[in-house]
Amino acid sequence: MIKTYQAACQERVNAALDTLFVPPGAGLARLYEAMRYSVMNGGKRVRPLLVYAACEALGGKPEQANGAACAVELIHAYSLVHDDLPAMDDDDLRRGQPTTHKAFDEACAILAGDGLQSLAFSALLDPRLSDLNAEVRLSMVSTLAHAAGPAGMVGGQAIDLGSVGIKLDQKALETMHRHKTGALIEASVTLGALASVNVQKDELKSLQTYAQAIGLAFQVQDDILDVESDTATLGKRQGADIARDKPTYPALLGLEAAKAYALELRDQALHALRPFDAAAEPLRELARYIVERRS
Amino acid sequence: MIKTYQAACQERVNAALDTLFVPPGAGLARLYEAMRYSVMNGGKRVRPLLVYAACEALGGKPEQANGAACAVELIHAYSLVHDDLPAMDDDDLRRGQPTTHKAFDEACAILAGDGLQSLAFSALLDPRLSDLNAEVRLSMVSTLAHAAGPAGMVGGQAIDLGSVGIKLDQKALETMHRHKTGALIEASVTLGALASVNVQKDELKSLQTYAQAIGLAFQVQDDILDVESDTATLGKRQGADIARDKPTYPALLGLEAAKAYALELRDQALHALRPFDAAAEPLRELARYIVERRS
Repeated sequence: MIKTYQAACQERVNAALDTLFVPPGAGLARLYEAMRYSVMNGGKRVRPLLVYAACEALGGKPEQANGAACAVELIHAYSLVHDDLPAMDDDDLRRGQPTTHKAFDEACAILAGDGLQSLAFSALLDPRLSDLNAEVRLSMVSTLAHAAGPAGMVGGQAIDLGSVGIKLDQKALETMHRHKTGALIEASVTLGALASVNVQKDELKSLQTYAQAIGLAFQVQDDILDVESDTATLGKRQGADIARDKPTYPALLGLEAAKAYALELRDQALHALRPFDAAAEPLRELARYIVERRS
Repeated sequence: MIKTYQAACQERVNAALDTLFVPPGAGLARLYEAMRYSVMNGGKRVRPLLVYAACEALGGKPEQANGAACAVELIHAYSLVHDDLPAMDDDDLRRGQPTTHKAFDEACAILAGDGLQSLAFSALLDPRLSDLNAEVRLSMVSTLAHAAGPAGMVGGQAIDLGSVGIKLDQKALETMHRHKTGALIEASVTLGALASVNVQKDELKSLQTYAQAIGLAFQVQDDILDVESDTATLGKRQGADIARDKPTYPALLGLEAAKAYALELRDQALHALRPFDAAAEPLRELARYIVERRS
Protein backbone atom coordinates (compact mmCIF):
# COMPACT_ATOMS: atom_id res chain seq x y z
CA MET A 1 0.00 0.00 0.00
CA ILE A 2 1.22 3.47 -0.92
CA LYS A 3 0.35 4.79 2.57
CA THR A 4 2.84 2.40 4.17
CA TYR A 5 5.54 3.24 1.63
CA GLN A 6 4.80 6.94 2.02
CA ALA A 7 5.07 6.70 5.81
CA ALA A 8 8.47 5.01 5.47
CA CYS A 9 9.66 7.75 3.07
CA GLN A 10 8.34 10.46 5.36
CA GLU A 11 10.17 8.96 8.30
CA ARG A 12 13.41 8.57 6.34
CA VAL A 13 13.44 12.05 4.84
CA ASN A 14 12.25 13.72 8.05
CA ALA A 15 15.10 12.14 9.99
CA ALA A 16 17.57 13.43 7.39
CA LEU A 17 15.99 16.90 7.18
CA ASP A 18 15.95 17.22 10.95
CA THR A 19 19.76 17.29 11.03
CA LEU A 20 19.93 20.40 8.79
CA PHE A 21 18.39 23.02 11.06
CA VAL A 22 21.01 23.38 13.78
CA PRO A 23 22.01 27.06 14.00
CA PRO A 24 25.82 27.30 13.63
CA GLY A 25 26.19 30.50 15.60
CA ALA A 26 24.80 33.27 17.76
CA GLY A 27 22.05 35.41 16.28
CA LEU A 28 20.94 32.71 13.83
CA ALA A 29 18.44 30.92 16.08
CA ARG A 30 15.32 32.64 14.74
CA LEU A 31 16.26 32.14 11.06
CA TYR A 32 16.90 28.44 11.63
CA GLU A 33 13.68 28.16 13.62
CA ALA A 34 11.78 29.72 10.70
CA MET A 35 13.42 27.33 8.23
CA ARG A 36 12.63 24.35 10.45
CA TYR A 37 9.04 25.57 10.87
CA SER A 38 8.69 25.86 7.09
CA VAL A 39 9.93 22.32 6.46
CA MET A 40 9.02 20.16 9.50
CA ASN A 41 5.31 20.71 9.11
CA GLY A 42 3.78 17.30 8.54
CA GLY A 43 4.05 17.63 4.75
CA LYS A 44 3.16 14.65 2.57
CA ARG A 45 6.72 14.45 1.17
CA VAL A 46 5.51 13.47 -2.30
CA ARG A 47 8.72 14.66 -3.97
CA PRO A 48 11.05 12.74 -1.60
CA LEU A 49 8.82 9.69 -2.16
CA LEU A 50 9.41 10.07 -5.91
CA VAL A 51 13.16 10.32 -5.34
CA TYR A 52 13.25 7.16 -3.22
CA ALA A 53 10.82 5.25 -5.44
CA ALA A 54 12.72 6.09 -8.64
CA CYS A 55 15.98 5.05 -6.99
CA GLU A 56 14.48 1.76 -5.85
CA ALA A 57 12.80 1.15 -9.22
CA LEU A 58 16.32 0.98 -10.67
CA GLY A 59 17.61 -1.28 -7.92
CA GLY A 60 19.23 1.44 -5.82
CA LYS A 61 19.11 1.56 -2.04
CA PRO A 62 16.93 4.35 -0.65
CA GLU A 63 19.70 5.65 1.65
CA GLN A 64 21.75 6.62 -1.43
CA ALA A 65 18.96 9.05 -2.23
CA ASN A 66 18.71 10.81 1.14
CA GLY A 67 20.52 13.96 0.00
CA ALA A 68 18.38 14.27 -3.12
CA ALA A 69 15.19 13.59 -1.16
CA CYS A 70 16.06 16.39 1.27
CA ALA A 71 17.03 18.72 -1.57
CA VAL A 72 13.72 18.49 -3.47
CA GLU A 73 11.73 18.93 -0.27
CA LEU A 74 13.82 21.99 0.71
CA ILE A 75 13.21 23.55 -2.72
CA HIS A 76 9.49 22.74 -2.46
CA ALA A 77 9.30 24.21 1.06
CA TYR A 78 11.10 27.41 0.05
CA SER A 79 8.74 27.87 -2.91
CA LEU A 80 5.72 27.57 -0.63
CA VAL A 81 7.13 30.10 1.86
CA HIS A 82 7.69 32.65 -0.90
CA ASP A 83 4.42 31.86 -2.74
CA ASP A 84 2.48 32.50 0.47
CA LEU A 85 3.95 36.01 0.95
CA PRO A 86 1.59 39.02 0.86
CA ALA A 87 3.08 40.22 -2.45
CA MET A 88 2.46 36.78 -4.00
CA ASP A 89 -0.57 34.58 -3.11
CA ASP A 90 -1.03 36.24 0.32
CA ASP A 91 -2.03 33.07 2.16
CA ASP A 92 -2.42 32.89 5.94
CA LEU A 93 -2.78 29.11 6.19
CA ARG A 94 -0.68 26.23 4.95
CA ARG A 95 -1.58 22.66 5.95
CA GLY A 96 -3.87 24.18 8.58
CA GLN A 97 -1.04 26.13 10.26
CA PRO A 98 -0.05 29.81 10.01
CA THR A 99 2.21 30.41 7.01
CA THR A 100 5.83 31.28 7.79
CA HIS A 101 5.40 35.06 7.41
CA LYS A 102 2.41 34.86 9.78
CA ALA A 103 4.21 32.72 12.37
CA PHE A 104 7.38 34.85 12.12
CA ASP A 105 7.39 37.99 9.96
CA GLU A 106 7.71 38.84 6.31
CA ALA A 107 11.42 39.63 6.28
CA CYS A 108 12.15 36.43 8.16
CA ALA A 109 10.03 34.43 5.70
CA ILE A 110 11.86 35.89 2.69
CA LEU A 111 15.22 35.01 4.27
CA ALA A 112 14.07 31.56 5.40
CA GLY A 113 13.04 30.81 1.82
CA ASP A 114 16.33 32.11 0.47
CA GLY A 115 18.24 30.03 3.00
CA LEU A 116 16.27 26.88 2.22
CA GLN A 117 17.19 27.17 -1.44
CA SER A 118 20.90 27.31 -0.58
CA LEU A 119 20.49 24.42 1.88
CA ALA A 120 18.99 22.31 -0.90
CA PHE A 121 22.22 22.50 -2.88
CA SER A 122 24.28 21.82 0.24
CA ALA A 123 22.10 18.76 0.92
CA LEU A 124 22.93 17.28 -2.50
CA LEU A 125 26.62 17.36 -1.59
CA ASP A 126 26.35 16.41 2.07
CA PRO A 127 28.41 13.25 2.70
CA ARG A 128 26.43 12.66 5.91
CA LEU A 129 23.24 12.27 3.86
CA SER A 130 24.43 10.09 0.99
CA ASP A 131 27.60 8.57 -0.37
CA LEU A 132 27.89 9.27 -4.11
CA ASN A 133 30.70 10.07 -6.55
CA ALA A 134 31.49 13.55 -7.90
CA GLU A 135 30.01 12.95 -11.37
CA VAL A 136 26.67 11.82 -9.96
CA ARG A 137 26.53 14.71 -7.51
CA LEU A 138 27.34 17.20 -10.26
CA SER A 139 24.53 15.88 -12.48
CA MET A 140 22.24 16.25 -9.48
CA VAL A 141 23.20 19.89 -8.89
CA SER A 142 22.70 20.64 -12.57
CA THR A 143 19.29 18.94 -12.62
CA LEU A 144 18.10 20.68 -9.46
CA ALA A 145 19.35 24.16 -10.42
CA HIS A 146 17.60 23.94 -13.77
CA ALA A 147 14.34 22.57 -12.34
CA ALA A 148 14.19 25.07 -9.48
CA GLY A 149 15.28 28.10 -11.48
CA PRO A 150 13.75 30.58 -13.92
CA ALA A 151 13.47 27.99 -16.70
CA GLY A 152 11.60 25.72 -14.25
CA MET A 153 9.72 26.26 -11.01
CA VAL A 154 10.41 29.99 -10.54
CA GLY A 155 9.43 30.57 -14.16
CA GLY A 156 6.19 28.71 -13.58
CA GLN A 157 5.34 30.91 -10.64
CA ALA A 158 6.04 33.97 -12.80
CA ILE A 159 3.76 32.64 -15.56
CA ASP A 160 1.10 31.88 -12.94
CA LEU A 161 1.21 35.39 -11.45
CA GLY A 162 1.11 36.90 -14.92
CA SER A 163 -1.98 34.93 -15.89
CA VAL A 164 -4.40 35.77 -13.07
CA GLY A 165 -7.58 37.11 -14.62
CA ILE A 166 -6.43 36.06 -18.10
CA LYS A 167 -8.35 33.34 -19.93
CA LEU A 168 -5.65 30.69 -20.54
CA ASP A 169 -6.23 27.87 -23.00
CA GLN A 170 -5.28 24.30 -22.08
CA LYS A 171 -1.87 24.56 -23.73
CA ALA A 172 -0.95 27.72 -21.82
CA LEU A 173 -2.26 26.24 -18.56
CA GLU A 174 -0.12 23.13 -19.08
CA THR A 175 2.94 25.23 -19.88
CA MET A 176 2.43 26.99 -16.57
CA HIS A 177 2.03 23.75 -14.58
CA ARG A 178 4.87 22.03 -16.42
CA HIS A 179 7.12 24.78 -15.08
CA LYS A 180 5.56 25.55 -11.70
CA THR A 181 5.17 22.02 -10.32
CA GLY A 182 6.14 19.67 -13.16
CA ALA A 183 9.80 20.65 -13.32
CA LEU A 184 10.50 19.74 -9.69
CA ILE A 185 8.48 16.52 -9.90
CA GLU A 186 10.43 15.47 -12.98
CA ALA A 187 13.66 16.47 -11.24
CA SER A 188 12.67 14.25 -8.29
CA VAL A 189 12.57 11.07 -10.40
CA THR A 190 15.71 12.15 -12.26
CA LEU A 191 17.59 12.66 -9.00
CA GLY A 192 16.35 9.33 -7.67
CA ALA A 193 17.48 7.62 -10.88
CA LEU A 194 20.90 9.30 -10.64
CA ALA A 195 21.21 8.22 -7.00
CA SER A 196 20.70 4.60 -8.05
CA VAL A 197 24.02 4.88 -9.98
CA ASN A 198 22.49 2.36 -12.34
CA VAL A 199 20.42 4.31 -14.81
CA GLN A 200 20.16 3.73 -18.57
CA LYS A 201 19.12 6.53 -20.89
CA ASP A 202 15.85 4.88 -21.98
CA GLU A 203 14.89 4.10 -18.38
CA LEU A 204 15.47 7.71 -17.42
CA LYS A 205 13.30 8.81 -20.34
CA SER A 206 10.48 6.48 -19.21
CA LEU A 207 10.68 7.78 -15.65
CA GLN A 208 10.54 11.36 -16.90
CA THR A 209 7.47 10.60 -19.05
CA TYR A 210 5.91 9.05 -15.95
CA ALA A 211 6.78 12.15 -13.90
CA GLN A 212 5.34 14.55 -16.47
CA ALA A 213 2.06 12.62 -16.49
CA ILE A 214 1.68 12.38 -12.71
CA GLY A 215 2.78 15.99 -12.28
CA LEU A 216 -0.06 17.11 -14.48
CA ALA A 217 -2.49 14.60 -12.93
CA PHE A 218 -1.58 15.97 -9.50
CA GLN A 219 -2.42 19.47 -10.65
CA VAL A 220 -5.69 18.50 -12.34
CA GLN A 221 -6.74 16.66 -9.18
CA ASP A 222 -5.73 19.67 -7.04
CA ASP A 223 -8.00 21.87 -9.16
CA ILE A 224 -10.83 19.32 -8.79
CA LEU A 225 -10.34 19.23 -5.01
CA ASP A 226 -10.37 23.02 -4.87
CA VAL A 227 -13.93 22.79 -6.24
CA GLU A 228 -15.14 19.69 -4.40
CA SER A 229 -13.40 19.49 -1.02
CA ASP A 230 -13.77 21.67 2.07
CA THR A 231 -11.28 23.89 3.91
CA ALA A 232 -10.87 21.53 6.89
CA THR A 233 -9.92 18.57 4.67
CA LEU A 234 -7.61 20.62 2.44
CA GLY A 235 -5.83 22.52 5.23
CA LYS A 236 -6.10 25.63 3.06
CA ARG A 237 -9.00 27.74 1.90
CA GLN A 238 -11.44 25.79 -0.30
CA GLY A 239 -12.35 27.66 -3.47
CA ALA A 240 -9.22 29.81 -3.16
CA ASP A 241 -8.31 29.40 -6.83
CA ILE A 242 -11.82 30.26 -8.01
CA ALA A 243 -11.97 33.28 -5.68
CA ARG A 244 -8.77 34.59 -7.28
CA ASP A 245 -10.01 33.87 -10.77
CA LYS A 246 -7.02 31.60 -11.29
CA PRO A 247 -7.16 29.37 -14.35
CA THR A 248 -8.13 25.77 -13.44
CA TYR A 249 -8.92 22.56 -15.32
CA PRO A 250 -12.54 22.34 -14.13
CA ALA A 251 -13.07 25.95 -15.24
CA LEU A 252 -11.48 25.20 -18.59
CA LEU A 253 -12.78 21.70 -19.39
CA GLY A 254 -15.76 21.30 -17.05
CA LEU A 255 -15.63 19.16 -13.89
CA GLU A 256 -16.41 15.78 -15.48
CA ALA A 257 -13.96 16.22 -18.35
CA ALA A 258 -11.29 17.30 -15.85
CA LYS A 259 -11.88 14.05 -13.91
CA ALA A 260 -11.61 12.01 -17.10
CA TYR A 261 -8.38 13.83 -17.99
CA ALA A 262 -6.87 13.03 -14.58
CA LEU A 263 -7.58 9.33 -15.17
CA GLU A 264 -6.10 9.50 -18.67
CA LEU A 265 -2.91 11.02 -17.26
CA ARG A 266 -2.74 8.25 -14.66
CA ASP A 267 -2.92 5.70 -17.46
CA GLN A 268 -0.17 7.47 -19.39
CA ALA A 269 1.99 7.32 -16.25
CA LEU A 270 1.33 3.59 -15.78
CA HIS A 271 2.04 2.96 -19.45
CA ALA A 272 5.44 4.64 -19.16
CA LEU A 273 6.35 2.21 -16.35
CA ARG A 274 5.69 -0.94 -18.39
CA PRO A 275 9.41 -1.71 -18.90
CA PHE A 276 9.93 -1.81 -15.12
CA ASP A 277 9.53 -4.78 -12.78
CA ALA A 278 7.95 -5.04 -9.33
CA ALA A 279 10.51 -2.63 -7.86
CA ALA A 280 8.54 0.16 -9.55
CA GLU A 281 5.34 -0.74 -7.68
CA PRO A 282 5.47 2.32 -5.36
CA LEU A 283 5.62 4.57 -8.43
CA ARG A 284 2.56 2.78 -9.88
CA GLU A 285 0.67 3.03 -6.61
CA LEU A 286 1.46 6.72 -6.39
CA ALA A 287 0.02 7.31 -9.88
CA ARG A 288 -3.20 5.61 -8.78
CA TYR A 289 -3.29 7.44 -5.46
CA ILE A 290 -2.87 10.91 -6.98
CA VAL A 291 -6.20 10.79 -8.79
CA GLU A 292 -8.02 9.08 -5.89
CA ARG A 293 -6.92 11.33 -3.03
CA ARG A 294 -9.39 13.66 -1.32
CA SER A 295 -6.90 16.21 0.03
CA MET B 1 46.08 50.52 -11.91
CA ILE B 2 43.14 48.81 -10.24
CA LYS B 3 40.67 50.81 -12.39
CA THR B 4 42.09 49.28 -15.59
CA TYR B 5 42.03 45.78 -14.12
CA GLN B 6 38.54 46.36 -12.79
CA ALA B 7 37.31 47.54 -16.20
CA ALA B 8 38.72 44.39 -17.82
CA CYS B 9 37.01 42.20 -15.19
CA GLN B 10 33.74 44.08 -15.63
CA GLU B 11 33.88 43.60 -19.36
CA ARG B 12 34.70 39.90 -19.05
CA VAL B 13 32.04 39.08 -16.47
CA ASN B 14 29.41 41.26 -18.13
CA ALA B 15 29.90 39.45 -21.43
CA ALA B 16 29.48 36.11 -19.65
CA LEU B 17 26.48 37.27 -17.58
CA ASP B 18 24.78 38.70 -20.65
CA THR B 19 24.39 35.18 -22.10
CA LEU B 20 22.34 33.99 -19.10
CA PHE B 21 19.19 36.09 -19.48
CA VAL B 22 17.63 34.66 -22.63
CA PRO B 23 14.07 33.58 -21.81
CA PRO B 24 13.67 29.91 -22.81
CA GLY B 25 9.93 30.07 -23.41
CA ALA B 26 6.69 31.97 -23.67
CA GLY B 27 5.51 33.84 -20.61
CA LEU B 28 9.01 34.12 -19.15
CA ALA B 29 10.04 37.41 -20.79
CA ARG B 30 9.20 39.65 -17.84
CA LEU B 31 10.95 37.45 -15.27
CA TYR B 32 14.11 37.32 -17.38
CA GLU B 33 13.89 41.06 -17.98
CA ALA B 34 13.69 41.62 -14.21
CA MET B 35 16.69 39.35 -13.62
CA ARG B 36 18.67 41.10 -16.32
CA TYR B 37 17.70 44.49 -14.89
CA SER B 38 18.86 43.39 -11.44
CA VAL B 39 22.27 42.24 -12.69
CA MET B 40 23.20 44.35 -15.74
CA ASN B 41 23.14 47.61 -13.81
CA GLY B 42 26.63 49.04 -14.03
CA GLY B 43 27.69 47.35 -10.79
CA LYS B 44 31.32 47.53 -9.75
CA ARG B 45 31.75 43.73 -9.97
CA VAL B 46 34.06 43.63 -6.95
CA ARG B 47 33.30 39.96 -6.27
CA PRO B 48 34.02 38.83 -9.86
CA LEU B 49 37.23 40.88 -9.71
CA LEU B 50 38.21 38.91 -6.60
CA VAL B 51 37.46 35.64 -8.38
CA TYR B 52 39.58 36.55 -11.40
CA ALA B 53 42.37 38.10 -9.33
CA ALA B 54 42.63 35.08 -7.00
CA CYS B 55 42.69 32.75 -10.00
CA GLU B 56 45.46 34.79 -11.65
CA ALA B 57 47.41 35.14 -8.38
CA LEU B 58 47.79 31.34 -8.51
CA GLY B 59 48.77 31.32 -12.19
CA GLY B 60 45.33 30.42 -13.56
CA LYS B 61 43.82 31.96 -16.66
CA PRO B 62 40.90 34.30 -16.00
CA GLU B 63 38.63 32.51 -18.48
CA GLN B 64 38.72 29.40 -16.27
CA ALA B 65 36.99 31.52 -13.63
CA ASN B 66 34.13 32.90 -15.74
CA GLY B 67 31.50 30.57 -14.28
CA ALA B 68 32.55 31.37 -10.72
CA ALA B 69 32.71 35.11 -11.45
CA CYS B 70 29.14 35.02 -12.78
CA ALA B 71 27.97 32.91 -9.86
CA VAL B 72 29.17 35.27 -7.11
CA GLU B 73 27.73 38.29 -8.92
CA LEU B 74 24.37 36.51 -9.37
CA ILE B 75 24.26 35.71 -5.66
CA HIS B 76 25.21 39.29 -4.80
CA ALA B 77 22.57 40.68 -7.16
CA TYR B 78 19.84 38.42 -5.77
CA SER B 79 20.71 39.46 -2.22
CA LEU B 80 20.39 43.14 -3.15
CA VAL B 81 17.01 42.59 -4.84
CA HIS B 82 15.64 40.86 -1.74
CA ASP B 83 17.33 43.26 0.73
CA ASP B 84 15.70 46.22 -1.02
CA LEU B 85 12.15 44.79 -0.66
CA PRO B 86 9.61 46.75 1.41
CA ALA B 87 9.60 44.04 4.10
CA MET B 88 13.40 44.28 4.38
CA ASP B 89 15.35 47.55 3.93
CA ASP B 90 12.58 49.16 1.80
CA ASP B 91 14.92 50.98 -0.58
CA ASP B 92 13.70 52.76 -3.72
CA LEU B 93 17.12 53.43 -5.22
CA ARG B 94 20.09 51.23 -6.02
CA ARG B 95 23.07 52.69 -7.89
CA GLY B 96 20.88 55.70 -8.69
CA GLN B 97 18.22 53.57 -10.42
CA PRO B 98 14.85 52.31 -9.18
CA THR B 99 15.22 49.06 -7.27
CA THR B 100 13.81 45.94 -8.94
CA HIS B 101 10.52 45.92 -7.04
CA LYS B 102 10.05 49.61 -8.01
CA ALA B 103 10.92 49.06 -11.69
CA PHE B 104 8.78 45.87 -11.84
CA ASP B 105 6.69 44.85 -8.85
CA GLU B 106 7.23 43.13 -5.54
CA ALA B 107 6.20 39.63 -6.62
CA CYS B 108 8.42 39.87 -9.68
CA ALA B 109 11.35 41.05 -7.54
CA ILE B 110 10.95 38.14 -5.13
CA LEU B 111 10.91 35.69 -8.05
CA ALA B 112 13.77 37.40 -9.88
CA GLY B 113 15.88 37.06 -6.72
CA ASP B 114 14.91 33.42 -6.32
CA GLY B 115 15.72 32.75 -9.96
CA LEU B 116 19.09 34.49 -9.74
CA GLN B 117 20.10 32.24 -6.85
CA SER B 118 19.34 29.12 -8.92
CA LEU B 119 21.14 30.60 -11.93
CA ALA B 120 24.25 31.11 -9.80
CA PHE B 121 24.52 27.36 -9.24
CA SER B 122 23.83 26.67 -12.91
CA ALA B 123 26.59 29.14 -13.84
CA LEU B 124 29.15 27.20 -11.78
CA LEU B 125 28.44 24.11 -13.89
CA ASP B 126 27.97 25.77 -17.25
CA PRO B 127 30.49 24.32 -19.74
CA ARG B 128 30.00 27.39 -21.96
CA LEU B 129 31.39 29.60 -19.19
CA SER B 130 34.37 27.58 -18.01
CA ASP B 131 36.02 24.23 -18.59
CA LEU B 132 36.73 22.53 -15.26
CA ASN B 133 36.69 18.98 -13.93
CA ALA B 134 33.92 17.50 -11.78
CA GLU B 135 35.88 17.61 -8.52
CA VAL B 136 36.66 21.32 -8.88
CA ARG B 137 33.09 22.17 -9.83
CA LEU B 138 31.77 20.21 -6.87
CA SER B 139 34.03 22.08 -4.43
CA MET B 140 32.76 25.29 -5.99
CA VAL B 141 29.10 24.37 -5.49
CA SER B 142 29.81 23.41 -1.89
CA THR B 143 31.69 26.67 -1.24
CA LEU B 144 28.99 28.82 -2.81
CA ALA B 145 26.04 27.07 -1.17
CA HIS B 146 27.65 27.47 2.25
CA ALA B 147 28.65 31.11 1.73
CA ALA B 148 25.28 32.15 0.30
CA GLY B 149 23.15 30.18 2.72
CA PRO B 150 21.88 30.52 6.28
CA ALA B 151 25.33 29.92 7.79
CA GLY B 152 26.68 32.72 5.56
CA MET B 153 25.12 35.64 3.71
CA VAL B 154 21.46 34.92 4.44
CA GLY B 155 22.35 34.42 8.10
CA GLY B 156 24.12 37.78 8.11
CA GLN B 157 21.05 39.51 6.76
CA ALA B 158 18.97 37.84 9.48
CA ILE B 159 21.43 39.00 12.17
CA ASP B 160 21.36 42.51 10.67
CA LEU B 161 17.56 42.71 10.67
CA GLY B 162 17.47 41.39 14.20
CA SER B 163 19.93 44.03 15.44
CA VAL B 164 18.30 47.27 14.24
CA GLY B 165 17.91 49.52 17.26
CA ILE B 166 20.05 47.23 19.39
CA LYS B 167 23.40 48.49 20.67
CA LEU B 168 25.86 45.98 19.17
CA ASP B 169 29.43 45.80 20.42
CA GLN B 170 32.29 45.50 17.93
CA LYS B 171 32.40 41.72 18.18
CA ALA B 172 28.68 41.37 17.41
CA LEU B 173 28.93 43.88 14.56
CA GLU B 174 31.82 41.93 13.04
CA THR B 175 29.94 38.66 13.38
CA MET B 176 27.11 40.25 11.40
CA HIS B 177 29.40 41.57 8.64
CA ARG B 178 31.45 38.36 8.52
CA HIS B 179 28.21 36.61 7.58
CA LYS B 180 26.38 39.27 5.58
CA THR B 181 29.16 40.37 3.22
CA GLY B 182 32.30 38.59 4.39
CA ALA B 183 31.15 35.07 3.53
CA LEU B 184 30.59 35.83 -0.15
CA ILE B 185 33.81 37.85 -0.44
CA GLU B 186 35.77 34.96 1.06
CA ALA B 187 33.93 32.56 -1.24
CA SER B 188 34.97 34.72 -4.20
CA VAL B 189 38.69 34.24 -3.58
CA THR B 190 38.13 30.56 -2.74
CA LEU B 191 36.27 30.01 -6.03
CA GLY B 192 38.97 31.88 -7.94
CA ALA B 193 41.64 29.76 -6.28
CA LEU B 194 39.72 26.57 -7.10
CA ALA B 195 39.36 27.70 -10.73
CA SER B 196 43.13 28.01 -11.02
CA VAL B 197 43.28 24.21 -10.49
CA ASN B 198 46.63 24.90 -8.86
CA VAL B 199 45.92 25.76 -5.25
CA GLN B 200 47.88 24.65 -2.20
CA LYS B 201 46.25 24.55 1.23
CA ASP B 202 48.45 27.29 2.74
CA GLU B 203 47.92 29.57 -0.27
CA LEU B 204 44.17 29.15 0.06
CA LYS B 205 44.43 30.01 3.76
CA SER B 206 46.40 33.19 2.97
CA LEU B 207 43.85 34.25 0.35
CA GLN B 208 41.02 33.67 2.81
CA THR B 209 42.78 35.75 5.48
CA TYR B 210 43.18 38.47 2.85
CA ALA B 211 39.48 38.22 1.95
CA GLN B 212 38.35 38.44 5.57
CA ALA B 213 40.40 41.60 6.07
CA ILE B 214 39.26 43.38 2.90
CA GLY B 215 35.65 42.28 3.50
CA LEU B 216 35.67 44.01 6.83
CA ALA B 217 37.61 47.00 5.46
CA PHE B 218 34.99 47.34 2.73
CA GLN B 219 32.25 47.46 5.34
CA VAL B 220 34.03 49.92 7.62
CA GLN B 221 34.64 52.20 4.62
CA ASP B 222 30.98 51.85 3.57
CA ASP B 223 29.93 53.02 7.03
CA ILE B 224 32.37 55.94 6.81
CA LEU B 225 31.00 56.91 3.39
CA ASP B 226 27.45 56.75 4.72
CA VAL B 227 28.48 59.52 7.11
CA GLU B 228 30.77 61.54 4.81
CA SER B 229 29.53 61.23 1.23
CA ASP B 230 26.39 62.55 -0.45
CA THR B 231 23.45 60.79 -2.11
CA ALA B 232 24.51 61.66 -5.68
CA THR B 233 27.99 60.18 -5.24
CA LEU B 234 26.75 57.10 -3.40
CA GLY B 235 23.81 56.36 -5.73
CA LYS B 236 21.77 55.59 -2.63
CA ARG B 237 20.48 57.69 0.24
CA GLN B 238 23.31 59.22 2.27
CA GLY B 239 22.81 58.75 6.01
CA ALA B 240 20.47 55.81 5.38
CA ASP B 241 22.15 53.64 8.00
CA ILE B 242 22.07 56.38 10.61
CA ALA B 243 18.43 57.18 9.83
CA ARG B 244 17.56 53.54 10.50
CA ASP B 245 19.61 53.44 13.67
CA LYS B 246 21.66 50.63 12.15
CA PRO B 247 24.87 49.78 13.97
CA THR B 248 27.92 51.25 12.19
CA TYR B 249 31.65 51.49 12.88
CA PRO B 250 31.70 55.32 13.13
CA ALA B 251 28.82 55.13 15.63
CA LEU B 252 30.66 52.47 17.61
CA LEU B 253 34.27 53.62 17.46
CA GLY B 254 34.01 57.27 16.42
CA LEU B 255 34.80 58.48 12.89
CA GLU B 256 38.58 58.84 13.26
CA ALA B 257 39.05 55.49 14.96
CA ALA B 258 36.91 53.89 12.24
CA LYS B 259 39.22 55.35 9.59
CA ALA B 260 42.28 54.06 11.43
CA TYR B 261 40.66 50.62 11.69
CA ALA B 262 40.02 50.55 7.92
CA LEU B 263 43.73 51.22 7.30
CA GLU B 264 44.73 48.54 9.79
CA LEU B 265 42.56 46.02 7.97
CA ARG B 266 44.14 47.01 4.65
CA ASP B 267 47.55 46.31 6.15
CA GLN B 268 46.41 42.92 7.44
CA ALA B 269 45.22 42.11 3.92
CA LEU B 270 48.53 43.13 2.35
CA HIS B 271 50.43 41.15 4.99
CA ALA B 272 48.48 38.01 4.11
CA LEU B 273 49.61 38.35 0.47
CA ARG B 274 53.34 38.41 1.29
CA PRO B 275 53.93 34.83 0.04
CA PHE B 276 52.58 35.77 -3.40
CA ASP B 277 54.48 37.22 -6.36
CA ALA B 278 53.56 39.99 -8.80
CA ALA B 279 50.59 38.02 -10.11
CA ALA B 280 48.80 39.01 -6.89
CA GLU B 281 49.22 42.74 -7.63
CA PRO B 282 45.51 43.28 -8.51
CA LEU B 283 44.56 41.86 -5.11
CA ARG B 284 47.00 44.26 -3.42
CA GLU B 285 45.70 47.21 -5.39
CA LEU B 286 42.15 46.32 -4.49
CA ALA B 287 43.02 46.31 -0.79
CA ARG B 288 44.43 49.83 -1.15
CA TYR B 289 41.51 51.01 -3.26
CA ILE B 290 38.84 49.82 -0.82
CA VAL B 291 39.89 52.24 1.90
CA GLU B 292 40.53 55.13 -0.52
CA ARG B 293 37.28 55.02 -2.53
CA ARG B 294 34.70 57.78 -2.18
CA SER B 295 31.65 55.78 -3.30
